Amino acid sequence: MENKRLTGDFTLPGESGYENLTLELAERWGADVIRDSDGTKLSDAIVKAGYGIYSTICIIREHNAFALEHPETQQQVFLCSDPVTAMDTTLQIRPLEGYFEEQFELNTSWEAMVYWQVYDRTSNHEVPRGNWEYADGLVTVKDCIPYHEYTVSFLCWRIWEEINMYNHTTNNWTSEHLRQLDPRHPLAWDYLCRYLEDWCKANPDTTVVRFTSLFYNFVWIFGSDMRRRNRFTDWGSYDFTVSPAALKAFEKAYGYALTAEDFIHQRKLQVTHMPPTKAKRDYMDFIQAFVAEKAQKLVEIVHRYRKKAYVFYDDSWVGMEPYGRRFASIGFDGLIKCIFSGFECRLCAGVDVPVHEIRLHPYLFPVGLGGLPTFSEGGHPEKDAQLYWRNARRALLRQPVDRIGLGGYLHLTQGYPAFVDTIEKIAGEFRHIKELHREGAPYTVPVHVAVLHTWGSLRSWTLSGHFHETDRHVLIHINEALSGLPVKVSFLSFQDVEEKGLEGVDVVINAGRAGDAWSGGDAWKGDRLVERLTKFVAQGGSFIGVNEPSAVEGYHTFFRMAHVLGVDLDTGARVCHGRWSFETSKRGGIPFEPAMLGNKDHLYLTDGKADVLYGCGDSPQFTVHDFGQGKGVYLSGFTFSPEAARMLAELIYYVTGKQKDVPVLTAEPGTEATYFPASHVVYFVNNTDRPLSTSVSLHGKTVRADLEPFGAQEVQVDDSVC
Amino acid sequence: MENKRLTGDFTLPGESGYENLTLELAERWGADVIRDSDGTKLSDAIVKAGYGIYSTICIIREHNAFALEHPETQQQVFLCSDPVTAMDTTLQIRPLEGYFEEQFELNTSWEAMVYWQVYDRTSNHEVPRGNWEYADGLVTVKDCIPYHEYTVSFLCWRIWEEINMYNHTTNNWTSEHLRQLDPRHPLAWDYLCRYLEDWCKANPDTTVVRFTSLFYNFVWIFGSDMRRRNRFTDWGSYDFTVSPAALKAFEKAYGYALTAEDFIHQRKLQVTHMPPTKAKRDYMDFIQAFVAEKAQKLVEIVHRYRKKAYVFYDDSWVGMEPYGRRFASIGFDGLIKCIFSGFECRLCAGVDVPVHEIRLHPYLFPVGLGGLPTFSEGGHPEKDAQLYWRNARRALLRQPVDRIGLGGYLHLTQGYPAFVDTIEKIAGEFRHIKELHREGAPYTVPVHVAVLHTWGSLRSWTLSGHFHETDRHVLIHINEALSGLPVKVSFLSFQDVEEKGLEGVDVVINAGRAGDAWSGGDAWKGDRLVERLTKFVAQGGSFIGVNEPSAVEGYHTFFRMAHVLGVDLDTGARVCHGRWSFETSKRGGIPFEPAMLGNKDHLYLTDGKADVLYGCGDSPQFTVHDFGQGKGVYLSGFTFSPEAARMLAELIYYVTGKQKDVPVLTAEPGTEATYFPASHVVYFVNNTDRPLSTSVSLHGKTVRADLEPFGAQEVQVDDSVC
Repeated sequence: MENKRLTGDFTLPGESGYENLTLELAERWGADVIRDSDGTKLSDAIVKAGYGIYSTICIIREHNAFALEHPETQQQVFLCSDPVTAMDTTLQIRPLEGYFEEQFELNTSWEAMVYWQVYDRTSNHEVPRGNWEYADGLVTVKDCIPYHEYTVSFLCWRIWEEINMYNHTTNNWTSEHLRQLDPRHPLAWDYLCRYLEDWCKANPDTTVVRFTSLFYNFVWIFGSDMRRRNRFTDWGSYDFTVSPAALKAFEKAYGYALTAEDFIHQRKLQVTHMPPTKAKRDYMDFIQAFVAEKAQKLVEIVHRYRKKAYVFYDDSWVGMEPYGRRFASIGFDGLIKCIFSGFECRLCAGVDVPVHEIRLHPYLFPVGLGGLPTFSEGGHPEKDAQLYWRNARRALLRQPVDRIGLGGYLHLTQGYPAFVDTIEKIAGEFRHIKELHREGAPYTVPVHVAVLHTWGSLRSWTLSGHFHETDRHVLIHINEALSGLPVKVSFLSFQDVEEKGLEGVDVVINAGRAGDAWSGGDAWKGDRLVERLTKFVAQGGSFIGVNEPSAVEGYHTFFRMAHVLGVDLDTGARVCHGRWSFETSKRGGIPFEPAMLGNKDHLYLTDGKADVLYGCGDSPQFTVHDFGQGKGVYLSGFTFSPEAARMLAELIYYVTGKQKDVPVLTAEPGTEATYFPASHVVYFVNNTDRPLSTSVSLHGKTVRADLEPFGAQEVQVDDSVC
Repeated sequence: MENKRLTGDFTLPGESGYENLTLELAERWGADVIRDSDGTKLSDAIVKAGYGIYSTICIIREHNAFALEHPETQQQVFLCSDPVTAMDTTLQIRPLEGYFEEQFELNTSWEAMVYWQVYDRTSNHEVPRGNWEYADGLVTVKDCIPYHEYTVSFLCWRIWEEINMYNHTTNNWTSEHLRQLDPRHPLAWDYLCRYLEDWCKANPDTTVVRFTSLFYNFVWIFGSDMRRRNRFTDWGSYDFTVSPAALKAFEKAYGYALTAEDFIHQRKLQVTHMPPTKAKRDYMDFIQAFVAEKAQKLVEIVHRYRKKAYVFYDDSWVGMEPYGRRFASIGFDGLIKCIFSGFECRLCAGVDVPVHEIRLHPYLFPVGLGGLPTFSEGGHPEKDAQLYWRNARRALLRQPVDRIGLGGYLHLTQGYPAFVDTIEKIAGEFRHIKELHREGAPYTVPVHVAVLHTWGSLRSWTLSGHFHETDRHVLIHINEALSGLPVKVSFLSFQDVEEKGLEGVDVVINAGRAGDAWSGGDAWKGDRLVERLTKFVAQGGSFIGVNEPSAVEGYHTFFRMAHVLGVDLDTGARVCHGRWSFETSKRGGIPFEPAMLGNKDHLYLTDGKADVLYGCGDSPQFTVHDFGQGKGVYLSGFTFSPEAARMLAELIYYVTGKQKDVPVLTAEPGTEATYFPASHVVYFVNNTDRPLSTSVSLHGKTVRADLEPFGAQEVQVDDSVC
């Protein structure tokens, strides 16, 4: 590939009042598109400068006048009061006690009240409706059982759109609180369609309508007490989609009625990290159908005005899952995903949509999502940008996206020249990588790794939210490592395996905590699943279990795949059973550090035959166990780092017998190499902040590179096989 | 109390061939009784020296000739084969594969085979009897489901008495392997009664028959592989009591039949640390009745020969629980308990029997129970003795026993003069403490602490076995701490609380791992239990929960007492729920070190109102929560040390409002003081290996003591209240 300066494929956030800066950075970074951001508007000087223009629309908000006129069109949610212990036979509960009253307002309408429920949480029984009454913000319960705990589940209005609420409370905004409309309400829907029509007419220069995003936000429930401002955050929750109208429509479509308890679920709510009930699965399907139908109508309007419709996959995305079976039917022209990590790039790149764009971080804001300074005192935005790009780059080397971009307030970059330089360099590396892909696909080791969990392909790559929001879950560390490895990766649900088996799969990974959606919980009660996986390994496949894989109570082992793994966890019943002693083995020569693994108690060898690569006391932490023609591998934990990704790579190559002939294994574990045969290029990256020299052995020839900290280097190779 | 030299109350292990040593040490240590030990016999020179004579009888062994002549009278056990995965539709299992064949022999008699079971462990179904057959040590299973796991549960003879087996394998004994008889077999029972009669006649000098012990040993299952020699050890297991005859008698008495699976229990067996099934509870009752009935007959024989009958509460004790409702009916004259710890002293001291004796450690053996040297190179028996006495002394200051003693080979003390000195000093301290108790009871803080678990008073003080055998369980650390505190302690079962409430109790402690017998598992599904305890705290009691107290799945909180504790544990469903932030509080001024507590993840504050005395990250580890008139206290763990016992003491005084007026709280936490009002004595002990000065404030006067390492000091006080 010629080393020309490539431009384009870059979306720049413009800012009115900073026209010169906008056009200067557009030139510097090679932008071809200028966008507005949440809270910004583009001036004519920018709009008319000849760039493509993305205009952000958050379709369900910015309609406060309408919302106040028709408050019944606002969105709702089921909440549950904090529990109150009955000290006598009557008690009073103020349902909204402890909730942020700027976000919620009780819905005491007749049609909402029929969904309210009072529960005895000690006995798990609903209190008969005749035993409680509501008045003046208080529920009074009579005939209580003394010393039992009671709660009230109730519907309420959400009177502050949550992204706006977040920006207000984080960035001290003082503007009017924005409300949000529920498109399920016919009045609201008609209004929104008209609004979009009018908007398209009024914005002829806009080339792309950037939906940020559709109708229902992921869930943020705020508390009144600053010691627990965040009561609940779930990037995959469907709780904000509910309303009496939705519940009635569901009942009609599915033949059974949902109750508040289907959502409240013993005050736990149904989080994305746990296996859903059947009712929740049905409800998700119901909402997805609704979202797809309505979104399709909006896209039609946009297309009618000869604009493209892109969607930002964050914020009000719920029901629009890009890997859901209805996404393509919406007809979006592009998907934009904001990213910190490699797995998010793969998530974006793999979607069936014409244009894939990633929005890089840091966002041009004074503080970052984690609350630390970026473009303010103490911040190092160039270092942040470099680190996120380090994560993204290895994923983009596996699978490209079409565009990159930034978001936020452009003026904040003033005084951060190192950041401007870094973005320029990143844009250059991005375009080169994209160009290499255009010339031909990178070399892939012929290994198919399937990640196995409850959600399967619907939640490909992500668990829900960003890495730092889900980093207590081991699977996100695994996914992040996999995002840059030269292997085929797919995401299977337990149902997929039960119904279709594992044809073509070489390695199955199951990684999670007992009972969660990632480990699988009750799904492991299915004998068919265990049979399929056992057969798969017996016939030569490998099963890698991490933390508490295949764990479920009720069987002779806690890990249902213990016979394959050679390792199990004692939940207490085996405390008197002797343990196999073990010596540490160097089998496979897989490089690892204990810090990459867990330090987990109560683990034991089942048949004593597993090789223990690492153990803590009498508890094995990393094992390889032969089973039939295949292997079971147990890892007590896995913490992502570039070196841990390398460990996982070598482990995968070892168990699949590929360890000896992978041409892209670098001599230096802090570096990675991607081989593009059509371009005759090995593309080296340095994943560390140290200068590193490295090499790969390609067709018997050594290809070397000397890399700057976080640097990349393209090396032309004579790769003709002798 | 006069400071005279007291003697007596000391049982010395005599040794033939070392007559002079025996009599010299008897004089030095003030012994009034000489005993034989396992593997030793006393010579006439010793027996006739004017001392009381204890003679050890292990009633069910030393009868190899009879056992070989009547092999059907030997004891049995249910075992389960290791699981085998079916790779096809047939498979073969060798049941005894992996078991120690010197311990077990298949029982393939017709009456035994009807109890054998083949299980599909993948589907949890028993394989129909027509689908398997046994021949030549092998079970062949047909019509298997490929990739399912199968096991064989079977009866086998135990052909090596386990204490003898332990001594052989630990101490390299080479004598004939001793067998053991099952007194349930009529032939064996008649033989044993005749044997005891003959023995009494032949041993006229014996004053006390020391049963070591009765019929059924605690369970040791050995494996064939030295990497897992110990397959199973449970000091409270009933597995060694089983036989076809016992199963038939059970069925007749209880109206339902037990199967192998009632014992094998998904290969987990039913360990003492887990809540029993109803079948196991019934079976324990059944065995206890049998043991009491037969033991009573043996005691009658002994009494007929004008000897006393003492029983050693270790080894073959199963079914004889000293806190069981039938123990007193046996008619023993004394109970002997070997001890390392304070809780074992309290266990012994509290039994309803005329004489209580503790056998001190170390045992006079080359190596100790933990496998470390004692009376051999590298051993420091005097240090061991001092440490165990440190533990015992604080318990004996609360509740005395009548006698102390040693066991083993006396000649081993030669060359260990420091040990001889230490025992002399210990004997002196013991007699002084006993004398103080004789003069009047020690001062007790008016607080009643109830330890709440599955077994209640049946397993008072002990969990099963010694401290070092159960130290992974937090409750033994609690019990050890309580054993020396000046408060009333009792042990209640969940059933006790449900049926009788908590009248007179001030503090309830529940300490264990979720699902185990000490935490309680499914017992917490009882609403009545939760009501009783909630009322108890609401009305002023305190509930101290340790590790995973009151934990059970299925409710809105994992800890059923979370509303009282103000703390709960998230098992996964609450991973998206926000946590209350907290500042650390110094409430109560309770002294502690983090090392005394746990470091547990996933804990959260329920209502945010608990005072957090210590937290790790966002996970509270030590909290105090007001509830009604009382308090809930959470400790994530508790590791025994004298200082940790002091922490628990102060915690108990704080929650019961007694903190300000406890006269026995020493100025130095490494020391303890016991006040004997009738003797006008404060007895100080130093629990550390450092010299310490300390004091207490008694009726406004300061009483001081300067203590040697591990030392004790009796201080006469003028305790007249002005």
